[in-house]
Amino acid sequence: MTDESRTKDAYARAGVDIAAGNQTVALYRQMLSTWRHPDQLDSIGGFGGVFRMPGGGDRALVASADGVGTKILIAAELKRYDGVGRDLVNHCVNDILVVNATPMFFLDYFAAGKLDPMVAAAVVEGCAHACRVHDCALLGGETAEMPGLYSAGHFDLAGTIVGIVDTNALPDPNSVEPGDAIIGLPSVGLHTNGYSLARALIPREDWMRPFNAGTYADALLAEHPSYYKAVRAIQSVARVKTMAHITGGGLLENVPRTLPPAVKAIFEASRWSVPAIMQDLERRGNLTHEEKYRTLNTGIGYTLIVPFTDANAAVAAAAGARVVGWIEARGDNEPQITIHEART
Amino acid sequence: MTDESRTKDAYARAGVDIAAGNQTVALYRQMLSTWRHPDQLDSIGGFGGVFRMPGGGDRALVASADGVGTKILIAAELKRYDGVGRDLVNHCVNDILVVNATPMFFLDYFAAGKLDPMVAAAVVEGCAHACRVHDCALLGGETAEMPGLYSAGHFDLAGTIVGIVDTNALPDPNSVEPGDAIIGLPSVGLHTNGYSLARALIPREDWMRPFNAGTYADALLAEHPSYYKAVRAIQSVARVKTMAHITGGGLLENVPRTLPPAVKAIFEASRWSVPAIMQDLERRGNLTHEEKYRTLNTGIGYTLIVPFTDANAAVAAAAGARVVGWIEARGDNEPQITIHEART
Repeated sequence: MTDESRTKDAYARAGVDIAAGNQTVALYRQMLSTWRHPDQLDSIGGFGGVFRMPGGGDRALVASADGVGTKILIAAELKRYDGVGRDLVNHCVNDILVVNATPMFFLDYFAAGKLDPMVAAAVVEGCAHACRVHDCALLGGETAEMPGLYSAGHFDLAGTIVGIVDTNALPDPNSVEPGDAIIGLPSVGLHTNGYSLARALIPREDWMRPFNAGTYADALLAEHPSYYKAVRAIQSVARVKTMAHITGGGLLENVPRTLPPAVKAIFEASRWSVPAIMQDLERRGNLTHEEKYRTLNTGIGYTLIVPFTDANAAVAAAAGARVVGWIEARGDNEPQITIHEART
Repeated sequence: MTDESRTKDAYARAGVDIAAGNQTVALYRQMLSTWRHPDQLDSIGGFGGVFRMPGGGDRALVASADGVGTKILIAAELKRYDGVGRDLVNHCVNDILVVNATPMFFLDYFAAGKLDPMVAAAVVEGCAHACRVHDCALLGGETAEMPGLYSAGHFDLAGTIVGIVDTNALPDPNSVEPGDAIIGLPSVGLHTNGYSLARALIPREDWMRPFNAGTYADALLAEHPSYYKAVRAIQSVARVKTMAHITGGGLLENVPRTLPPAVKAIFEASRWSVPAIMQDLERRGNLTHEEKYRTLNTGIGYTLIVPFTDANAAVAAAAGARVVGWIEARGDNEPQITIHEART
């Protein structure tokens, strides 16, 4: 069995069609290539859309929409509702933080087949809590009861965040150069990606079994953290060139979005630790190197590229931050990302 | 059978629990009463959230999130995908238009159990088209493949719009006074509300049957129109005091959101026509007065309150606009809305 066919098998058994996803993005690009609003600015890596405030001088609005993926099915099954709201807001905060934006407000979308007020309130309260932590208004939302679309007990949750940034503070990928250090901030688990794979590999009957210091459920539902404070602390002592939020696509797809073509990023996996739940998934699924680093965050939730001389100060500024790699000149046809595996 | 129990029966058989909806809203209010962001302004009737631009002087951002409800199940069943994107954007445009906001950008959320790139692209293309009509950027979005949450062929669509308004131009309900005229803009069908009831009353086998000038499907999927141009045209010739977008809750619940407590709105149903699909639903469901006006837009998609002396100019400024009612002083305990039925 070649690596390629194993990769296809693993994704397919999780019910997620990577090729369909890529084709969809290509169709969107083609469709949107015909017209772009004149106030829409280039977005760094597409983490958040950037829109120049009409008459607003150097200020731009940054917006991002997201969901929590099939993590929601685990939360629904276990009736642990409040975490997904915090997951979602923190995910959105991190996405616009990549373009250096400060959150202003958030709106949620909650949909269920049969509306249970206590469930809806618990989910939205999670959103409200995470909003308040970020001094971000929960400005509105929509709660929809949609019989026939969602099964009993199931619901979906999505949201949109809007923040503000000074256009002079938008990160510039072209500032990244060989010798720069890559700072990684630790992840606590899957965050909001890889859950279809996780649900395929960890059967329901295992969820309440002891795992690490708790249960599999605890590990699977560990909250997507906000990197807002850590990033602001690092920015106060180091010149941060570009950043990436490591979500679906892992290091392999998210980091290149913030690099210029002439450089490559080298990661050394011995420099960070992988949460136990991801080691477990890797073992259960016999995941290839490619699968692992393209589906999971593998222990790094957020990356920042800083000049080599700022690396020590950056690492000292935020708990758990460490140098996880560096930037080198990239030759023709070389991959943009190389991850050297830790020796075991 | 009393009217009340018939009402409950009709909603219940549609699978929509009005009491659960109200209880959810009450829980949200309670939760959000403990903290509000200082830049969040009072929103007129809650159609859109209003947020003062930090350092932005008299400008505020207005945002609204929405979905298209179970209209999506009819579109999915009939594989007519492009309309729901336009439905959604137009709905959002109308919602923030109520607080006089001009659209700036929109973000969509599309989720399916199995991602079909052509379906996703058709849906999002509908969004892009309606955005362009309003000179509004499609700034971003999220496309999620969520096996296990959505059935094969099913998908959900939601979105968030952000617009801008001068805070001096925010409508003031306290300006509404006895003698004012209510201008109605015509609806073309159910728009994006009442579909769970419609699906309960019109069986699948009827959808392709001839109805009016087309089929039931055509009538059910008629696009939610944008009232943006009509409203701007009316505002150019008349002083518009407050407006309401007639969505879920109908005239009975949406118009009061923009009235001061001391007045009531009197509608005279003989002054407008009800789309054939709603007459059909009323007949099939034997709907009560209350049910009809609380579930359906009953022919009026948007209302504007203007001084009596501006009414003729307002009506002349937009196709289909007509005076549909007026404002009177309200006595203690009087309802805020009275609708006099057309004689048949």
